[in-house]
Amino acid sequence: MKSTEFNLDFKREERTGLSEAIFCGGKSTKQINAILEAISKAGRSVLLTHLTSDKFQEFSIELKSCIDFDPSSNTGFFSTPYPLLPSKNIAIITAGTSDAAVAAEAARTLTFFGHRYELIQDIGVAGLWRLLDRVDEIEKFPIIIVVAGMDGALPTVIGGLVSGAIIALPTSVGYGAAESGRTALNASLTSCTAGIVVVNIDNGYGAACAAIRMLTAASRSN
Amino acid sequence: MKSTEFNLDFKREERTGLSEAIFCGGKSTKQINAILEAISKAGRSVLLTHLTSDKFQEFSIELKSCIDFDPSSNTGFFSTPYPLLPSKNIAIITAGTSDAAVAAEAARTLTFFGHRYELIQDIGVAGLWRLLDRVDEIEKFPIIIVVAGMDGALPTVIGGLVSGAIIALPTSVGYGAAESGRTALNASLTSCTAGIVVVNIDNGYGAACAAIRMLTAASRSN
Amino acid sequence: MKSTEFNLDFKREERTGLSEAIFCGGKSTKQINAILEAISKAGRSVLLTHLTSDKFQEFSIELKSCIDFDPSSNTGFFSTPYPLLPSKNIAIITAGTSDAAVAAEAARTLTFFGHRYELIQDIGVAGLWRLLDRVDEIEKFPIIIVVAGMDGALPTVIGGLVSGAIIALPTSVGYGAAESGRTALNASLTSCTAGIVVVNIDNGYGAACAAIRMLTAASRSN
Amino acid sequence: MKSTEFNLDFKREERTGLSEAIFCGGKSTKQINAILEAISKAGRSVLLTHLTSDKFQEFSIELKSCIDFDPSSNTGFFSTPYPLLPSKNIAIITAGTSDAAVAAEAARTLTFFGHRYELIQDIGVAGLWRLLDRVDEIEKFPIIIVVAGMDGALPTVIGGLVSGAIIALPTSVGYGAAESGRTALNASLTSCTAGIVVVNIDNGYGAACAAIRMLTAASRSN
Amino acid sequence: MKSTEFNLDFKREERTGLSEAIFCGGKSTKQINAILEAISKAGRSVLLTHLTSDKFQEFSIELKSCIDFDPSSNTGFFSTPYPLLPSKNIAIITAGTSDAAVAAEAARTLTFFGHRYELIQDIGVAGLWRLLDRVDEIEKFPIIIVVAGMDGALPTVIGGLVSGAIIALPTSVGYGAAESGRTALNASLTSCTAGIVVVNIDNGYGAACAAIRMLTAASRSN
Amino acid sequence: MKSTEFNLDFKREERTGLSEAIFCGGKSTKQINAILEAISKAGRSVLLTHLTSDKFQEFSIELKSCIDFDPSSNTGFFSTPYPLLPSKNIAIITAGTSDAAVAAEAARTLTFFGHRYELIQDIGVAGLWRLLDRVDEIEKFPIIIVVAGMDGALPTVIGGLVSGAIIALPTSVGYGAAESGRTALNASLTSCTAGIVVVNIDNGYGAACAAIRMLTAASRSN
Amino acid sequence: MKSTEFNLDFKREERTGLSEAIFCGGKSTKQINAILEAISKAGRSVLLTHLTSDKFQEFSIELKSCIDFDPSSNTGFFSTPYPLLPSKNIAIITAGTSDAAVAAEAARTLTFFGHRYELIQDIGVAGLWRLLDRVDEIEKFPIIIVVAGMDGALPTVIGGLVSGAIIALPTSVGYGAAESGRTALNASLTSCTAGIVVVNIDNGYGAACAAIRMLTAASRSN
Amino acid sequence: MKSTEFNLDFKREERTGLSEAIFCGGKSTKQINAILEAISKAGRSVLLTHLTSDKFQEFSIELKSCIDFDPSSNTGFFSTPYPLLPSKNIAIITAGTSDAAVAAEAARTLTFFGHRYELIQDIGVAGLWRLLDRVDEIEKFPIIIVVAGMDGALPTVIGGLVSGAIIALPTSVGYGAAESGRTALNASLTSCTAGIVVVNIDNGYGAACAAIRMLTAASRSN
Repeated sequence: MKSTEFNLDFKREERTGLSEAIFCGGKSTKQINAILEAISKAGRSVLLTHLTSDKFQEFSIELKSCIDFDPSSNTGFFSTPYPLLPSKNIAIITAGTSDAAVAAEAARTLTFFGHRYELIQDIGVAGLWRLLDRVDEIEKFPIIIVVAGMDGALPTVIGGLVSGAIIALPTSVGYGAAESGRTALNASLTSCTAGIVVVNIDNGYGAACAAIRMLTAASRSN
Repeated sequence: MKSTEFNLDFKREERTGLSEAIFCGGKSTKQINAILEAISKAGRSVLLTHLTSDKFQEFSIELKSCIDFDPSSNTGFFSTPYPLLPSKNIAIITAGTSDAAVAAEAARTLTFFGHRYELIQDIGVAGLWRLLDRVDEIEKFPIIIVVAGMDGALPTVIGGLVSGAIIALPTSVGYGAAESGRTALNASLTSCTAGIVVVNIDNGYGAACAAIRMLTAASRSN
Repeated sequence: MKSTEFNLDFKREERTGLSEAIFCGGKSTKQINAILEAISKAGRSVLLTHLTSDKFQEFSIELKSCIDFDPSSNTGFFSTPYPLLPSKNIAIITAGTSDAAVAAEAARTLTFFGHRYELIQDIGVAGLWRLLDRVDEIEKFPIIIVVAGMDGALPTVIGGLVSGAIIALPTSVGYGAAESGRTALNASLTSCTAGIVVVNIDNGYGAACAAIRMLTAASRSN
Repeated sequence: MKSTEFNLDFKREERTGLSEAIFCGGKSTKQINAILEAISKAGRSVLLTHLTSDKFQEFSIELKSCIDFDPSSNTGFFSTPYPLLPSKNIAIITAGTSDAAVAAEAARTLTFFGHRYELIQDIGVAGLWRLLDRVDEIEKFPIIIVVAGMDGALPTVIGGLVSGAIIALPTSVGYGAAESGRTALNASLTSCTAGIVVVNIDNGYGAACAAIRMLTAASRSN
Repeated sequence: MKSTEFNLDFKREERTGLSEAIFCGGKSTKQINAILEAISKAGRSVLLTHLTSDKFQEFSIELKSCIDFDPSSNTGFFSTPYPLLPSKNIAIITAGTSDAAVAAEAARTLTFFGHRYELIQDIGVAGLWRLLDRVDEIEKFPIIIVVAGMDGALPTVIGGLVSGAIIALPTSVGYGAAESGRTALNASLTSCTAGIVVVNIDNGYGAACAAIRMLTAASRSN
Repeated sequence: MKSTEFNLDFKREERTGLSEAIFCGGKSTKQINAILEAISKAGRSVLLTHLTSDKFQEFSIELKSCIDFDPSSNTGFFSTPYPLLPSKNIAIITAGTSDAAVAAEAARTLTFFGHRYELIQDIGVAGLWRLLDRVDEIEKFPIIIVVAGMDGALPTVIGGLVSGAIIALPTSVGYGAAESGRTALNASLTSCTAGIVVVNIDNGYGAACAAIRMLTAASRSN
Repeated sequence: MKSTEFNLDFKREERTGLSEAIFCGGKSTKQINAILEAISKAGRSVLLTHLTSDKFQEFSIELKSCIDFDPSSNTGFFSTPYPLLPSKNIAIITAGTSDAAVAAEAARTLTFFGHRYELIQDIGVAGLWRLLDRVDEIEKFPIIIVVAGMDGALPTVIGGLVSGAIIALPTSVGYGAAESGRTALNASLTSCTAGIVVVNIDNGYGAACAAIRMLTAASRSN
Repeated sequence: MKSTEFNLDFKREERTGLSEAIFCGGKSTKQINAILEAISKAGRSVLLTHLTSDKFQEFSIELKSCIDFDPSSNTGFFSTPYPLLPSKNIAIITAGTSDAAVAAEAARTLTFFGHRYELIQDIGVAGLWRLLDRVDEIEKFPIIIVVAGMDGALPTVIGGLVSGAIIALPTSVGYGAAESGRTALNASLTSCTAGIVVVNIDNGYGAACAAIRMLTAASRSN
């Protein structure tokens, strides 16, 4: 198959403040390799998502040595991430242990782009006291990513208790009527708490980028 | 269209403890009339559900005088309901005002079959303090029907706070991703709180019958 | 149906900064009346949404005189809205004329809560030059609500051109494969532009509340 | 990924009478290990569900020796289960042999929490005589869990013959129009028999917990 | 809109034994009129289905006089139906009164094409004794159309008791999880009774035509 | 609601060869009026689609006199349509009479843009001889729009008999498993005949525009 | 898990003329073994369906020797099948080679129950001449099973050409909009040809049983 | 399973200009072998699609030597492809690298049938400047295949910029709300750009055949 030149999008970063990430899900090792070579030549860094351990192991030793790989989130930092900023405006909250991998993708994305975060785990609404014990702490964060699968009730409850921005991050945890995350997604979209926003199922990367966009907005609002 | 005799099911009551109700939704005024005549001849009473005001107005004056009609729940009692029992074991809880009609169908069904209930309204999880103020009261009821549309989060939260039987009654309140009640239904089915049971969307009648079955079970368990 | 007292949620405003709104969709005129009376007694104001002209006409003359009703958005302000704030941080952008009613709901919600906005209409991606002509203007707003039905492509394209927060507001405009807004919703959720957040189909009220939450977050971030 | 402390929910048992179970489906061996260590330190026992033989084999020999593992139900008892209660109030009924694994999960959950049950297998309605032969026996149980996939007709037929509480437990047995259990689930939700309640597809654990909640309700009703 | 000649399909009858029927659902009164005129000129008769009373009233007095209209089934016989055959091989069985209109469409279609049938009503499986009382009678019919909405369990139960051909005719009776008949349809498709065949939701006409095809097959098999 | 100027897209025609049409479905009479005034001032013509007779009657007498309205297709020509071109390259074929309205929308769109067409009606595959009689005629047209609802089989059969471009135009004719046109749409998308292309359900306008794009392509290919 | 006795259904055959088959899909080798032992003790034979080569290889050598296994259809005959009947009333027709496995399941089921059939392959409507060449041959069979995936158009076309009973057997062949056979299923259910009946996706066993039921009906009709 | 002769469709090519391709997805190696032998005997060539590397490796060495296999597109040319035509009328455009495999299937199909094409990659709308840089180049091609997964926005944007025929080719790239390509498919079907046509998800073969049909139409239009 003849083709035009490989087409990297370096302009994206200057326009949106977020450099293009590489979604490894639908790509062959060969394709990823070619992209990283081009990025390397341009002297840039990049975030890799949906990079499984198996796929990472197929990389050459040389390439592996350039990537800070994290198997719990299936992410990799190619070359140097952004410098870490001093302030911590974002909390990541999970409903249960099964949501940890998706939360980790959000956390790693924030880290790559230089943002600090607080991780608060396992406070799903089935045991409400766990959440109530920490409301004061949660309230301190202007931006809160709430990670929840199954019934997706946690964003609604937290959103009713605090005034900041709530990003619901539904996960595909569950089976049967959980419909691969569709139920958690819909529950957040139809939340009886006003002003909750939602990203795609299991999209930790997207939730983190949304939080960064909100911080950009914050720095420019008056 | 030639037909065999009209076929009423009086044996049902002796087997299940619940007499057959008439779902007026898919039936013509003429069909309902014929059924009520047969019931009248048999000297029995019956509950009518999904009976709109418009359909009720089409009945003859004579028939109307035999029916205790309630427009808020679209139910009617034809002839005398069951005698009222002394104890009050059931609470009906709603998330919001829009859920009132479905709650009313459950309430009327309980009344028809002689069961008392407590109605606790408007304590949806978007304003958690409303619910927390009343947990002690709710805990006293062994059987709790929780009526909620949209994200359907209320049954999960209540189920995590009390030990009794929780019957989730999803409603079709909401739009878009609420999917006509499907989201509230699925959220209760995939609740992270264990042991919640669910009935069909908007099925106040079914939730009440389930509560009665549980009381029957209670009277026979050891 | 016996009931506990009507249950208004005045605490919500102090917790989340957003007073409870009244979704008139599933409520009878009688129910709305009762709620407004209670709010009136408490000396408060409230936003009414999904209030059709037909339903508004059923109100008493006295009640109608207390409501600033807008038929294009099906919203009403009961009593005095919040005082208008000086700065203008939010743009509302529509893809086509058919999206105007949903945009109007967002606009009215912002107005009720005292926030200014800029409305930019009819710049759907089928005629890309309309959008390109205005990118510089759009870029100035830190928070952008993008209203689009059918293929829901507009949030993706705008999000790729600017760095601020993008709230995709899908509408039910379209037929057939538009699936009552589900396609526009899904397209925004799976946007190839990173960091777009989404609210429910036709939920102008929710998009506006999300924007306000982001401004609250902005005022508290560092 | 930095994190707050691991967050076990020991209060749940005192509130709901049911200790938290560990859903092993979405968790790594490492995560399960960490949770069990914490439980062990607290001197408690726990039920593990969705624990496949493959995952169990990955555990250390020491850990394996602390778990009573059952491959037919994919469940494990970590440490000592609850003491066995004397009475037998619950029947578990299956439509076919393919439903046995889900029934086994319900059975094991009951056993873990100290409840006896009667298992009645293979009496699906395609061979009605099998069911009719046993109606008298079934009628004796106040609470009946009915496990059925495909068309999910068995709960409806049994519910029409007995007066106790019926918990429909749909399974994902079948293909094509069985829609991974959705058809059996919907059939039970829309049952023409009144008062049937439903739990999620393949959720044997949830059905058992629901039965236990009903027994709690029974002990407290009057 | 210029057009080619109107295109009637008289050859269909000689090939399949069933003349073309007119589905009035998507057609204007004017279109139906034109078709009937053409049929009249050709000296033929035709069955009209989905002909509501309202649409029928829009016909001219002259046309109305040529149609034997039945409002309970929304069918009409234009001109003379087929001569009635002597034998009675088909039973139509309904689960409940709400299924009567669909059963009536099947019945009228059989009558139009000259086939006798027995109608057995209201023997849904929620009251199994009603069905058991009549099994011997039902067994006598070689072809049985079973009309059932909601959970669609009746075809399965009957199919397990008799050896003849079972045509499941699902109806859109029910709400919520009944999914406009989809649940009854799927339940029959995944029936645990072998050899049940299914037609479209509410398609009484199709079920009757299928029965006639089976009788044609019977007359030609050896 | 304050707004920027109304935003007409006159550049679209010069880029794509097709002027913007007005989809009247989601627009108020007032909105349509305002758009037409702007178009009138610009000295242009426009096609209106989804314009029902009821909505048309709400227009002022003056406006009505400027529109060539066709109730069978719910379309209107505002001001002068494009001049009629001499050649006839397009056939529109329908499966049944119920598909006529959608075919008419396609036909009117072609006429507005100056293209001739041949209309061949009622040759659905249930009566295959009707189609076979006309294959030679159909084969002569390089571009064929095939309009079919229900099972959507006609595009597949025609596509297997001729070599030209086949545009499948599924319609929402049918009920139950027809799923409002989704089945006809999917059937054409998964056609076993190679190279069939599809437009949205009931989108006669889109099918005609696609045909015109193909003629543009034809004039430029070599 | 304690259990009641294993529950075989030998009465089914005498009631319906079809002995119970064993669906091996959801069953373990151990379960199948136990069932076959019981059947063996009862001196009966049985058909096994959904028996993959892998599962068959797990059987003991002794058991394997008692089974006539066919890998192309994933079926096995345990012990002696029914004696072969002399007449041949059934045709099995496939649209394409990919439908062969499902057709083979139907063919083997017929063989097990002693019925002859004619297999006519690869005559899908994309190449209509293949079908037209064989219409006379097809017309001779009173009962026709038509196997088709993707667009499922073949049953409609054949049903319009012949007068016998048509059993549509949709397959899961295809991808994307084929929706795992749902499109072929729906297309047959909404066929514009009257009187087509349908069985579940890939259910060759069910289609064969339906054909046998029709032959039983034929032998008893008059 | 006895069978009629294997049924190849050589007439298809002369009728439609496109020879039958072999979809290897649902076929066994044995079946493919048999088909190729028959084709070989007839002295013809054929395109194989959905031929994975694993399946190709199962072929005999002899057979492999007759096939020009391409693992990036899972296609094979058996025997000689069509002679290459001189003109280049078709562009294939992809949104992202993950869409490359589907684009490759389209490209290989064009090559097999002798058509040249231009491949333009990675110009998705998230980075609009990539697309804008190449509009002039794209505009030159009369027929454009646009390959896009996820939100499927690219066909809409390109269609608004050029006048030629646009074939949207949705891919299953993405997860969650991408719904295996359904969202990209629906977005193109409901595109706000008029005249876009769509083929099935991942159907590169179909998109190429559609382009060839359009060229055939072009050669015959006037």
